[in-house]
Amino acid sequence: MAGNVFGKLLTLTTFGESHGKAIGGVLDGLPAGLKIDFSFVQKELDRRRPGQSSVVSQRSENDNVEFLSGIFNEYTLGTPIAFIVRNKDANPDDYDHLKKAYRPSHADFTYDSKYGIRDHRGGGRSSARETVARVIGGALAKQLLQNFNISIIAYVNRIGQVSVEKSYLELDLENTENSEVRCPDKVVAKNMIKAIENSAEQKDTLGGEITCIIRNVPVGLGEPVFDKLNADLAKAIMSINAVKGFEVGSGFSGTKMKGSEHNDLFEVKDGEVGTITNYSGGIQGGISNGEDIYIRAAFKPVATLMRDQQSIDSNGKSIILVGKGRHDVTVVPRAVPIVEAMAALVIADHLLQNKIAKIDNLLK
Amino acid sequence: MAGNVFGKLLTLTTFGESHGKAIGGVLDGLPAGLKIDFSFVQKELDRRRPGQSSVVSQRSENDNVEFLSGIFNEYTLGTPIAFIVRNKDANPDDYDHLKKAYRPSHADFTYDSKYGIRDHRGGGRSSARETVARVIGGALAKQLLQNFNISIIAYVNRIGQVSVEKSYLELDLENTENSEVRCPDKVVAKNMIKAIENSAEQKDTLGGEITCIIRNVPVGLGEPVFDKLNADLAKAIMSINAVKGFEVGSGFSGTKMKGSEHNDLFEVKDGEVGTITNYSGGIQGGISNGEDIYIRAAFKPVATLMRDQQSIDSNGKSIILVGKGRHDVTVVPRAVPIVEAMAALVIADHLLQNKIAKIDNLLK
Amino acid sequence: MAGNVFGKLLTLTTFGESHGKAIGGVLDGLPAGLKIDFSFVQKELDRRRPGQSSVVSQRSENDNVEFLSGIFNEYTLGTPIAFIVRNKDANPDDYDHLKKAYRPSHADFTYDSKYGIRDHRGGGRSSARETVARVIGGALAKQLLQNFNISIIAYVNRIGQVSVEKSYLELDLENTENSEVRCPDKVVAKNMIKAIENSAEQKDTLGGEITCIIRNVPVGLGEPVFDKLNADLAKAIMSINAVKGFEVGSGFSGTKMKGSEHNDLFEVKDGEVGTITNYSGGIQGGISNGEDIYIRAAFKPVATLMRDQQSIDSNGKSIILVGKGRHDVTVVPRAVPIVEAMAALVIADHLLQNKIAKIDNLLK
Amino acid sequence: MAGNVFGKLLTLTTFGESHGKAIGGVLDGLPAGLKIDFSFVQKELDRRRPGQSSVVSQRSENDNVEFLSGIFNEYTLGTPIAFIVRNKDANPDDYDHLKKAYRPSHADFTYDSKYGIRDHRGGGRSSARETVARVIGGALAKQLLQNFNISIIAYVNRIGQVSVEKSYLELDLENTENSEVRCPDKVVAKNMIKAIENSAEQKDTLGGEITCIIRNVPVGLGEPVFDKLNADLAKAIMSINAVKGFEVGSGFSGTKMKGSEHNDLFEVKDGEVGTITNYSGGIQGGISNGEDIYIRAAFKPVATLMRDQQSIDSNGKSIILVGKGRHDVTVVPRAVPIVEAMAALVIADHLLQNKIAKIDNLLK
Repeated sequence: MAGNVFGKLLTLTTFGESHGKAIGGVLDGLPAGLKIDFSFVQKELDRRRPGQSSVVSQRSENDNVEFLSGIFNEYTLGTPIAFIVRNKDANPDDYDHLKKAYRPSHADFTYDSKYGIRDHRGGGRSSARETVARVIGGALAKQLLQNFNISIIAYVNRIGQVSVEKSYLELDLENTENSEVRCPDKVVAKNMIKAIENSAEQKDTLGGEITCIIRNVPVGLGEPVFDKLNADLAKAIMSINAVKGFEVGSGFSGTKMKGSEHNDLFEVKDGEVGTITNYSGGIQGGISNGEDIYIRAAFKPVATLMRDQQSIDSNGKSIILVGKGRHDVTVVPRAVPIVEAMAALVIADHLLQNKIAKIDNLLK
Repeated sequence: MAGNVFGKLLTLTTFGESHGKAIGGVLDGLPAGLKIDFSFVQKELDRRRPGQSSVVSQRSENDNVEFLSGIFNEYTLGTPIAFIVRNKDANPDDYDHLKKAYRPSHADFTYDSKYGIRDHRGGGRSSARETVARVIGGALAKQLLQNFNISIIAYVNRIGQVSVEKSYLELDLENTENSEVRCPDKVVAKNMIKAIENSAEQKDTLGGEITCIIRNVPVGLGEPVFDKLNADLAKAIMSINAVKGFEVGSGFSGTKMKGSEHNDLFEVKDGEVGTITNYSGGIQGGISNGEDIYIRAAFKPVATLMRDQQSIDSNGKSIILVGKGRHDVTVVPRAVPIVEAMAALVIADHLLQNKIAKIDNLLK
Repeated sequence: MAGNVFGKLLTLTTFGESHGKAIGGVLDGLPAGLKIDFSFVQKELDRRRPGQSSVVSQRSENDNVEFLSGIFNEYTLGTPIAFIVRNKDANPDDYDHLKKAYRPSHADFTYDSKYGIRDHRGGGRSSARETVARVIGGALAKQLLQNFNISIIAYVNRIGQVSVEKSYLELDLENTENSEVRCPDKVVAKNMIKAIENSAEQKDTLGGEITCIIRNVPVGLGEPVFDKLNADLAKAIMSINAVKGFEVGSGFSGTKMKGSEHNDLFEVKDGEVGTITNYSGGIQGGISNGEDIYIRAAFKPVATLMRDQQSIDSNGKSIILVGKGRHDVTVVPRAVPIVEAMAALVIADHLLQNKIAKIDNLLK
Repeated sequence: MAGNVFGKLLTLTTFGESHGKAIGGVLDGLPAGLKIDFSFVQKELDRRRPGQSSVVSQRSENDNVEFLSGIFNEYTLGTPIAFIVRNKDANPDDYDHLKKAYRPSHADFTYDSKYGIRDHRGGGRSSARETVARVIGGALAKQLLQNFNISIIAYVNRIGQVSVEKSYLELDLENTENSEVRCPDKVVAKNMIKAIENSAEQKDTLGGEITCIIRNVPVGLGEPVFDKLNADLAKAIMSINAVKGFEVGSGFSGTKMKGSEHNDLFEVKDGEVGTITNYSGGIQGGISNGEDIYIRAAFKPVATLMRDQQSIDSNGKSIILVGKGRHDVTVVPRAVPIVEAMAALVIADHLLQNKIAKIDNLLK
């Protein structure tokens, strides 16, 4: 119960420090009889991998996942699925100069204060390397969702000051994975790459935003009142390293609209209830209404700079942090599969929860 | 486990439909021996009460809380604290015309689809009346926090297009409760009231934003990696009716900054570690760092309009919803104590969780 | 999370002190659309009521339950069902002599030590009066189970040294409710009554055993490995006041058997897999196998005696506890509906949990 | 939430099938700063190992544990501790004849029915091999308890018809680990070994009982009302494979006593409150009272026989199960460390839970 478990019926427990022996997880509650495509899992993992293009971190780890349990002849057993990824590229000595340093806007100080001890190598447990396990868990959840025709796709809609101004409905999201920065608008993508290159030259870093769209979610997912679908999505996304903001549907911009503009009027299309507009973002009263769910996450700029910074150490003494090592100017493109993974875990969990919402479902 | 419980060690379970017999809750996990000031609880409840000023809903309920258990001679017993507020003003017949109607951007359709049954009177369980129980729970949590000198204060920083541009640090937050719209900037408050009056004339509604500041949080609250303090705050706030967005610290605006600008450099003041800036919003790596925690919530405009609207009923037939009854143009001022309550529940829960983070705490 | 919540998907939260304002509970997770028979709930409550016969406690409370939420026009809404029973017969002054006393084999000392404060009136939260809420919750769970044809029936098979030696299969369980001591064997029942009368004369008390049979449980309930059906039943039953032992199937007597005697051989009857014997008690590998589930609970003798006892007070001083008031010689007959209620909650919870065990169930 | 997680604040998640790649677990919530003695963990694991003496199973696995995370330079980090034990001795072909067989009193039929799929090799997830992870988790919990001077020791008090008649207080428990059958009474131990040898000759199997004593538990552990210390111990023990019964304190035999005999009178020794007798077994009102906690578990005879048995397969066809392979006549001696491990996890969890029971603890 110490915070490393996510979900209610489908639970992902993750473990591992950045430069410990392994990162891994246990996914419990995935129904039995689901066929698992291992190559899909690996492909998802490769999407978050460092070193995948010229604009992201050069640490090159293969990140091969080993499944230890819960799958038998390619089918889920209904028992917990454990998996690990060994940390092969660990070079602990690289981090000796950080043993006592508190890096600005990192978790060194807070972990040290909370626990009285920390693994200083690469941020230990606070490192975004932990998200390896989330992507694997999410890749399994996605395979459950495929059985219900639910799809999840995310893209980068801002890096620093460069952003996509169009709605996701006006974009060809098929372009996303072909873009080095995972932005489906080719012109904007080019400008994002320029911004990253500029930032690299200045030994500075950038943040950005990711938009995620979840399609074909059946009506009815989400549990009132605390476990609203939007609340669980918010927690999922806000638990990702560096995320400082979350929106669903009209989000912050909706606060400036009038009710008469913002209300999504119902219509009946092909015998199905739908809404003409979708400012609600596919969720009403915390429950999915069958329209697209779209959410947005704000990522702060990377805290590790390639330039020298003033800081303090654990004794409170002033130090100079020297900028070196292998670091991303921005993590936003690599965070796309992480956002998708967390969204997939939430939707899959609620799919299970909703199955027992009414007695008619049980008597089937 | 069906979504009506909030928290891990300090859990609030709420119950009740808007026009059922009562709204209530059970707060479990509040430590024994805490002195309870009942008048404070009632005062908090009065802050969210309808009919408290000219700019909010005219439904007048006294909302007197009755405590049923868990408190003995004004001190908590360590046993669950149950409380109820009777729904005195219920006039079910007012809602007969809504028995089958699906109001736009409400939860009628989604509840009906999920459960196959719903209490149509005033939105039933989906009504914001449920937040009565949250405010009571939060008022108890606040009394725990007072023992640790932690304070929580929120204010309205936007209504519709009218917003406070200053940082909370430049405002005199003592003014908040004297303002009908709970905005501490008197000039902006006046403009907000005008905007509400205009909107009322147009039989339209408004949304807005609330900023909440949590002070004197000790270093160390928040559990990596899924139960980051910011993630739990996000879930808490996003579970409030009508909230569509959440930010902590620099939030969405931080995505446009460079890392060199955004990093909060450490300094040692009076022997205590602090940061010079606070873009992190008091949380680093999901754990409080001792600086102010400040968060922001986006509320969509009220969905119930006083004008007629096109809609459908549960048979898919077109209907006209006639605007009538007693409704707020905006709920944002009344939502201020709700935001504070949810924040208080999260901080109090994490205060308990952190107590067992290291063996030194246990051996004391 | 402080121990007053039972269950995973169907959760019962209880609250209330013995002589506080009310005892009550919240049942969350009961599926929507279930028709509720309120008179059945009241009837179940009457079965545990004090004063129902000459051999049980003379405290006479009507114990009328008031439902506050979650049920609309006699059908469950899928929202939390809250209920309360007011404590009408409370006479706090009766307990003034116990303010500081530690009664032997009661919870006075442990509560005081744990919490530093306690409600001394009638045992406060530690009183068996709390089980009022369990019986109500169980009565609701039973109504869910009726839809699946699952029945639960318990009886007294021992009071003090008097016990039923026959297996439940040889008894006519229909006789149970006609017996003042809830023992279906009429001869044994008579001897039990005699034993109770003897004990009353001696101002002494008795314990006993209850056997509970759960029929028509579908194959498949129970979650490996920690949430085995037998483990959850054990926790449920052992959480009832005064229970000191639990058995399922062959229980302790099975430890003396050989494997070749104890193994339940399979057979196919009418196309259904069954077992010839049922030493397993209907559960194998923690999962129901379709045979009768039968369990047994051991109740210690009542700790409150009508005679004087030596004890100490909270200052460690010796005191004499004077035997007075209204107390049962034995609680075992009144505990029968409590055992059934806890069993019903466990089975109903696992019925929900099992619904999502395999993907075939979900795709229906 | 699918049943593979044990505990509330200290949670053990286990995974792994008997002949899959590995058995393992994740222990989350162990406080930071605890020194870990790895050799102690391995020693505990060796106590449950097959092949450790002439009277237990001949499957010889080294069962070397590999820790993957959560420990840094021999101290706990406060982050999840993951560990695995590879299944080296797996010989899947040994199990081909069991692919479709339903072994009597095993979990083959129930797993198959519940999940529609199962790993038939050695019982898959239902195998007692899963308890490897429990023993490791328990060995870590024991090291936390050592800081509080709490000790846990269990022994075999019955095998088949041979039992220790003395109370644990009359035994020299130091003898336990020197006994091949983990029985501290040397005469009884000899008879147990004879009984096992006789049973082996008859190709039959035996069950038995284990008594476990927990000493120096501070007053106050256990959460009313559902999470009573005895209820959580019951669940813990009943979740172990083959356990059919559980007792605390006087247990079933206490049902035959009079209240005046059974009540544990208080006394003050050296300024500390204690009880003269201890029929309560160290727990009153669900909360530890400082006396020894003693519990007893009933193990059914091993279901796998070395002789032929009649059974059916998954098509409902009659088959003959041929007795072969490497199997224990009784698992009771090897279950001793498992019982201790589960008890340790419960006590450690409640030690953490109790830390936040009253505000005085928090303000320290």
